[in-house]
Amino acid sequence: MIYFDHNATTPLHPVARDAWLRASGEFFANPSSPHRLGARADRALDEAREKLAKWLGCAPDEIVWTSGATESNNMVAHHFSASAGQAWVSAIEHPSVIGAVRRWFAQRRQLIPVTADGMIELDWLGDAFKQEAKPAFVGVMAANNETGVLQPWREAAAICRERGVPFFCDAAQWIGKLPAHGLGGCDFVSGCAHKFGGPKGVGFLKVPRGKFHALLHGGGQEHGRRAGTEDVAGVAAMVAVLELREGAMRDESALRARLLWRGHFEKMLTAKLPGARIVGSGADRLWNTVSALMPSSSDCRARWVVKLDKLGVAVSTGSACASGREEPSHVLAAMGVAPEESDRVLRFSSGWETGGKEWGLLMKALAVAAAG
Amino acid sequence: MIYFDHNATTPLHPVARDAWLRASGEFFANPSSPHRLGARADRALDEAREKLAKWLGCAPDEIVWTSGATESNNMVAHHFSASAGQAWVSAIEHPSVIGAVRRWFAQRRQLIPVTADGMIELDWLGDAFKQEAKPAFVGVMAANNETGVLQPWREAAAICRERGVPFFCDAAQWIGKLPAHGLGGCDFVSGCAHKFGGPKGVGFLKVPRGKFHALLHGGGQEHGRRAGTEDVAGVAAMVAVLELREGAMRDESALRARLLWRGHFEKMLTAKLPGARIVGSGADRLWNTVSALMPSSSDCRARWVVKLDKLGVAVSTGSACASGREEPSHVLAAMGVAPEESDRVLRFSSGWETGGKEWGLLMKALAVAAAG
Repeated sequence: MIYFDHNATTPLHPVARDAWLRASGEFFANPSSPHRLGARADRALDEAREKLAKWLGCAPDEIVWTSGATESNNMVAHHFSASAGQAWVSAIEHPSVIGAVRRWFAQRRQLIPVTADGMIELDWLGDAFKQEAKPAFVGVMAANNETGVLQPWREAAAICRERGVPFFCDAAQWIGKLPAHGLGGCDFVSGCAHKFGGPKGVGFLKVPRGKFHALLHGGGQEHGRRAGTEDVAGVAAMVAVLELREGAMRDESALRARLLWRGHFEKMLTAKLPGARIVGSGADRLWNTVSALMPSSSDCRARWVVKLDKLGVAVSTGSACASGREEPSHVLAAMGVAPEESDRVLRFSSGWETGGKEWGLLMKALAVAAAG
Repeated sequence: MIYFDHNATTPLHPVARDAWLRASGEFFANPSSPHRLGARADRALDEAREKLAKWLGCAPDEIVWTSGATESNNMVAHHFSASAGQAWVSAIEHPSVIGAVRRWFAQRRQLIPVTADGMIELDWLGDAFKQEAKPAFVGVMAANNETGVLQPWREAAAICRERGVPFFCDAAQWIGKLPAHGLGGCDFVSGCAHKFGGPKGVGFLKVPRGKFHALLHGGGQEHGRRAGTEDVAGVAAMVAVLELREGAMRDESALRARLLWRGHFEKMLTAKLPGARIVGSGADRLWNTVSALMPSSSDCRARWVVKLDKLGVAVSTGSACASGREEPSHVLAAMGVAPEESDRVLRFSSGWETGGKEWGLLMKALAVAAAG
């Protein structure tokens, strides 16, 4: 199977698997236990914290281990729900941000609009700060999961910093695909392992120092910010594969090569399937993601997926979370894509190990599927 | 190292490790993805659901996968916080139940008292139902993590059923140590893998059909009851080791042997260390747990732990969650143990693979530590 659904989840990387196995043996104890085995597990957690903090550019004690980005994102909305003011989050946030804000802010929320290319409108943010009461927080994702469009999170963070408003960045699709450096400058940052070769069920939230209103209560782990026995093996696996990736990304030509493969695929796609269009083509996007509006004469996206599946290629109809349901994508809707068009949008998302060859095979399969 | 801290967490069982590795390969895809790999992962989740449901005695669609018992317990308190009425939970619940109820019920809560042996007072429950308004729910754990005392959860569940009040049972310390059968008769049941040989970061909540107020919002996974990409490998590992254990426990002599080993240890302990006392000795307790009040002439429990640690034996000062902090145990306090006494309480908790030999080595180490 040729796998082009890495934005939904990635295969477990051998480095992550090995780290998980090693930590499951050496650091199996409860980090809160009072004996040496417990202390050893606690130290392993702290070493992982130091590494991640260095990559992000923040203090180690600002890292809280969680069960994944969905939990992290819910933690942020819950934390701020006690504050006065609205939540301003982009209209294209992941369902876990949109859903958590709906839960905790009800009517106290505004969606930051995006351009036709799927980038948040920074002007809206500037204007809103002039005209409205200070929000409780602002949330803008680093890279969109459906389109791969990179968001101006640095600029948004700077605007918020100037106004003294906390800024939250869901970086689940950025971390492991682009260098994490600088994200630590955001007040809150979320991410999870299974989007870059780590195991499922583990992630993190960068939380600034000071009072934090925990979502999970109990044993006082993570300095009272997230109760529950820490998943030391999961954390070790996540950090091991991120270490590998952060190292590989220091070589800029590695990222350039991946952008070229994707670019070549996009050229072929639009050339060979007249009427096909790349969503967000005018914006900078992740090197791994292609959101493609298929020709209007063609099948709906569900039929495309089935055809490609039979040809041995796994692709997605958008976010894995939203698939299987009939509602049109809120991301595409925010970009002004009509529902009948968004029903023809496919997402191809590669992994770090995917090469030009696989992109070529994907193209070949698409041509066969279009013909038959 | 001889490990007597299984109630804090257990080493990963080889069967769980193998299942985790296999599922990480075969079922790595996102269960929500629309292709065959996704469908395969989803099927693996459902097969695990069917197995767990059969052991508990409930319907498969009542099982919700979570990140562990702490999350499950927080989900229950949060779910009921929208209901009228108080939360009645036992005074000896795990900190994740106590903490979540404090968060979501604030002053709307009452603690069910326990006897000197650490069993909840069923009479209190009967009286309260006569005198007070109907509570939103009642929560009683299956077995206490600090003392191992088995709670009359079947009787409490029956009383609640009669009154039409939802009953919640935190079975984290029961599952995998005693047969799960019958627990499915409780409205809500929580458990987690790492207390019986599974990996950390995975657990479940049995939720009755009908409206459930989710704690984590997002992609609509688990029929909207718990958002976040499911940890298929973690679930597979949890169920694999529980399958093994449920099979082994069908042989009652296996449980009897373990009770005998523990009983023999307790006799030796009180004989060899005059003044030592078993906490909850008058009650039925888990075959793996000994909570011992050490002689008054002896060290505080922190020094015991260090001495035993040096002798190669890992023991605990009570719940791992509470250790490292100075507050006296709320469990021992509820049983009427004075703070100066509870500072001399040690917890020894064995695993399924622990034999009479290890209990003997623990006794030997205690004798050495007491002498030196």
